[in-house]
Amino acid sequence: MRAEIGQQPAALRATLDALLPRSGEVRRLARGCRQVLFIARGTSDNAAVYGSYLVQTRAGLLATLGSPSIATEYQSRLDLSGVLAVALSQSGQTEEIVQTLAWAADCGARTMAVTNGAASALAGVAELDFVTLAGPEHAVPATKTFTTQLAALAVLAIGLGADLDAGQLRAVPEEIERLLDSGLDAALDPVVAELAGAPGMPGVPGPADGVVVSGRGLAYSAALELALKLKEACYLHAMGLSWADLLHGPIAVVDAATPAILVAADSGPALPGTIDLARRVTAAGARAYAIGGGPGLAAVSSHAVPGPRLPEWLAPLGLIVPGQLLTEALSRRLGIDPDSPRGLSKVTQTA
Amino acid sequence: MRAEIGQQPAALRATLDALLPRSGEVRRLARGCRQVLFIARGTSDNAAVYGSYLVQTRAGLLATLGSPSIATEYQSRLDLSGVLAVALSQSGQTEEIVQTLAWAADCGARTMAVTNGAASALAGVAELDFVTLAGPEHAVPATKTFTTQLAALAVLAIGLGADLDAGQLRAVPEEIERLLDSGLDAALDPVVAELAGAPGMPGVPGPADGVVVSGRGLAYSAALELALKLKEACYLHAMGLSWADLLHGPIAVVDAATPAILVAADSGPALPGTIDLARRVTAAGARAYAIGGGPGLAAVSSHAVPGPRLPEWLAPLGLIVPGQLLTEALSRRLGIDPDSPRGLSKVTQTA
Repeated sequence: MRAEIGQQPAALRATLDALLPRSGEVRRLARGCRQVLFIARGTSDNAAVYGSYLVQTRAGLLATLGSPSIATEYQSRLDLSGVLAVALSQSGQTEEIVQTLAWAADCGARTMAVTNGAASALAGVAELDFVTLAGPEHAVPATKTFTTQLAALAVLAIGLGADLDAGQLRAVPEEIERLLDSGLDAALDPVVAELAGAPGMPGVPGPADGVVVSGRGLAYSAALELALKLKEACYLHAMGLSWADLLHGPIAVVDAATPAILVAADSGPALPGTIDLARRVTAAGARAYAIGGGPGLAAVSSHAVPGPRLPEWLAPLGLIVPGQLLTEALSRRLGIDPDSPRGLSKVTQTA
Repeated sequence: MRAEIGQQPAALRATLDALLPRSGEVRRLARGCRQVLFIARGTSDNAAVYGSYLVQTRAGLLATLGSPSIATEYQSRLDLSGVLAVALSQSGQTEEIVQTLAWAADCGARTMAVTNGAASALAGVAELDFVTLAGPEHAVPATKTFTTQLAALAVLAIGLGADLDAGQLRAVPEEIERLLDSGLDAALDPVVAELAGAPGMPGVPGPADGVVVSGRGLAYSAALELALKLKEACYLHAMGLSWADLLHGPIAVVDAATPAILVAADSGPALPGTIDLARRVTAAGARAYAIGGGPGLAAVSSHAVPGPRLPEWLAPLGLIVPGQLLTEALSRRLGIDPDSPRGLSKVTQTA
């Protein structure tokens, strides 16, 4: 997992070199489409959340997430004309996702696949396939296949007419290189130590019972993905929630034994609410760890880990990197092998 | 909370008497609409999940959940012509939801509100309002306002042309009465005892660290809602997940210290997968508690609590009732006041 985290700049460069010249194919495929429907599970679902926010905020099209069981369990017939269905699967072999994209085509949707599996079943089913060039990923927790999916979705948004600067996207690999060389391990160490054994937290003798991971808007995808990593590789009861959802009930679980990790871009409309949430978490007696969010979020957090220097629309590609390193280090500290957590295999079949 | 759980049959009768004769108003409002977009947070969001599955599986229309921050934080302009936007809010006063429905109207959507607040801001903004007649709800954890929302959504589906038997819907209050009188407290007691103190579970001296609540398809809404109740009123790290999502990573957290509660209708296409999941959970050394799912799920679970005798499309209205009683009893057992959990108030403002 550690090696694959480090391969992300190269994986992103290769993926962007391959896909950026192809944004016109998306434009042609989506002609006449009013909206995007994402189809995904697990890490790919978290990437789809990024895609839905990006398409809605920058390309002006409705973009929501579909429920595969409507196709696979209920075999419902819907009218999906005018819909661009975009299925994401790292392997491209998860049958449920392949079946759901084929179903979408039968229902009249235009279809596109985003996958790291070049000759996969999913690529075969789709009218257009965007194959990410992450290379083979051996660790069960996805890292470089996630960030390259986000890059592919940024190209998708550009193809859909989003007013975005492709030059900023091209600069992401270099910024992630800088971030990886910026001493993140040291910055993360107090978080790892507290989550593993919480020596500084009164009343918490062992590892944290659970953790809340929160973000909003575009950064919500990175928060969800970090929560999934912590569940997969650290067996932590990690709840990924937008701050608005958190305040609608789950805020009750936040106490001294349940720290919160708050993920935010350094700017953008979601930042003020995240700063308010950090204040609320610390007022409840809990620790608030910031990932990104700039000096404003750092000032009100118990401990702050710097995020990437990227505009808000690209920040999730960098914000997940400290989260990946945190997961890997915490997993080892807890005596788990992060590459092969219990109960999981690389291709998940749920159809 | 306990009293309000018991008021659900009467609340449902009053709501159905008021709304069933009005399904034609939905039909007229939705003329020309291709799809439904639900707008909600918290418990109302869980009701929206029921609505989205019901509309898709029985009315043949695409139905997905919107992201309020697209409207409130990003102020994006989308083309929502041909979309029926349905906002749900118990109070009808959550500004974020009111703003998002007003935004949907500006974007060209037809608009409808489902709320327990007759003269609320949300009802005022919508072209059509379905006011549930749950009566005043004093406990912070919603109970009767949730089940009456589900009833309103069932009427919505009928109005949208779903092939559903209104007589079955009218019979729900009586079935919930029967369920409430069927000795559920005794059936739930072992679950309450184990979650509170886990005396029978080796290696788990204190309360359970967390719990996974899983369901699929239509029952997924009841699983999500039970997970939210357990977070709100028991401060439990409860993860509400569909079984497919669970197998894509979070299954790693299931161990002897993390029981799973599996929620299923007694029949339907989601049941076989839930039975498989119970086998997988117990094979991982964890406890699997069934709510509903009939004899098939009971046979492979550590302990089974009977669910309602309702067809799959109505089962969520009854499946949440044992979950509400479980939450209330566990909350008291843990020394919490279920009516007023920490950090929460009845109307949540997140705009």
